[in-house]
Amino acid sequence: MTDAVTADRLLGGRVLLQQPAEGYRVAIDPVFLAAAVPALDGQSVVDLGCGVGAASLCLLQRVPGARVVGLEIQRALFRLASANARANNMAGRFTPVVGDILSLPPRFAPGSFDHVMVNPPYLEAGKATASPKGTRAIADQEGEAQLSDWVRVALLLVRDKGSVTFIQRADRLEKLLAAFDGKAGELLVYPLWPKPGRPARRVLVRARKNVLTPTRLLAGLPLHKTDGSYTDTAEAVLRDAARLDLTAADPPDGQADA
Amino acid sequence: MTDAVTADRLLGGRVLLQQPAEGYRVAIDPVFLAAAVPALDGQSVVDLGCGVGAASLCLLQRVPGARVVGLEIQRALFRLASANARANNMAGRFTPVVGDILSLPPRFAPGSFDHVMVNPPYLEAGKATASPKGTRAIADQEGEAQLSDWVRVALLLVRDKGSVTFIQRADRLEKLLAAFDGKAGELLVYPLWPKPGRPARRVLVRARKNVLTPTRLLAGLPLHKTDGSYTDTAEAVLRDAARLDLTAADPPDGQADA
Repeated sequence: MTDAVTADRLLGGRVLLQQPAEGYRVAIDPVFLAAAVPALDGQSVVDLGCGVGAASLCLLQRVPGARVVGLEIQRALFRLASANARANNMAGRFTPVVGDILSLPPRFAPGSFDHVMVNPPYLEAGKATASPKGTRAIADQEGEAQLSDWVRVALLLVRDKGSVTFIQRADRLEKLLAAFDGKAGELLVYPLWPKPGRPARRVLVRARKNVLTPTRLLAGLPLHKTDGSYTDTAEAVLRDAARLDLTAADPPDGQADA
Repeated sequence: MTDAVTADRLLGGRVLLQQPAEGYRVAIDPVFLAAAVPALDGQSVVDLGCGVGAASLCLLQRVPGARVVGLEIQRALFRLASANARANNMAGRFTPVVGDILSLPPRFAPGSFDHVMVNPPYLEAGKATASPKGTRAIADQEGEAQLSDWVRVALLLVRDKGSVTFIQRADRLEKLLAAFDGKAGELLVYPLWPKPGRPARRVLVRARKNVLTPTRLLAGLPLHKTDGSYTDTAEAVLRDAARLDLTAADPPDGQADA
């Protein structure tokens, strides 16, 4: 890997992250993804399409006793994920593996993980503008795998009643929910609103395997106040590695009566 | 029809509605459905599964120059819809027809309507508790038609770039969006929140035929203030026959910074 790499920090400096200077760059999505995974100490987690390991390292900050296995198709990102695991003293707990979700390495045995988390490519195959760097385009753009494949593989890997959590662009909500329809239960749809009253840009969707609880469209989280600063809950997730409780109702005194 | 019928009023008394005393009873759903349909004077609208005509009559209060054709499978409800059309002096503008969406009467020509609105059965076929009155159960429970059939027929009937609007239980959001996935564009997902911060019970979904605009997950509408009274926007829809502008951002001073 000779391409330029930057060193960035997440979770108020707790996570050090080397990542490519160009192409897909970690923003807040993997941080919120990790915050929404209900993992406990001692449990196993898969980070499908782990990239440089941002979501995995954030999850381990909150749940140091979990074990995370990442799967990444791009060798350059896999190498950075391995380096990031070591740099954060997580080498024994975060194990990146290079491979394709459409041809799972033997380590990824069906039904053997407590939780799966996924920050899948955000652009549909064939619709993205190709990046000048060929390999970099993959993190933004679906390769051979479609969104429905990411959902199918996530549900394959997780154990009975285990959780699968996705973060996605809100403008692909119908494709994400269609992929889950009839294949999992206890679907939680949790919008991330840029500000109160504005359309959601991102949405967290969490589901459980072989559970029949009905779908819930949750109030979600406004990320910014009207003055542009982060809301308290967003700040707690982004700076203090707080868990994001998807089903917690907002406190009444924080609510609008619009 | 010898069963008991009640006379109720909608839209602050503007709409008089005879409906069966037992079984499915009109609440606020058809009122919000009609409020979300972007019909203009002179345009044609289909009310699929029109029941006793609540949504049709509400829409005509707001857009008196529109023409609405309703389709209802239950003869008893169709007769009440016809009586309601006359009682509201809408007999020339609201035309209920008895028939099945799976075997459309000739009047329902594909691609010939500007808008379609649907308040489909809310319980899945086979999952509803049967009502003691056999015919009544149909309005709550899917008969032969599945939710995907309602979406398919709605998109069949509407013209190019025309709108299709559904109101559904939020716990079936994934089934509704799956039915629209890849078959329409400009999907607008508009949650109706019982109160700020609480999960949505109902969701409005509007889409356009042969339009490629991306999906939007909108802020939606809180129906009640924390004191239990209706919010101003809900009140305007329910009492004043106001249009519901799905893409209007809420005013900043009515917003929470939670």
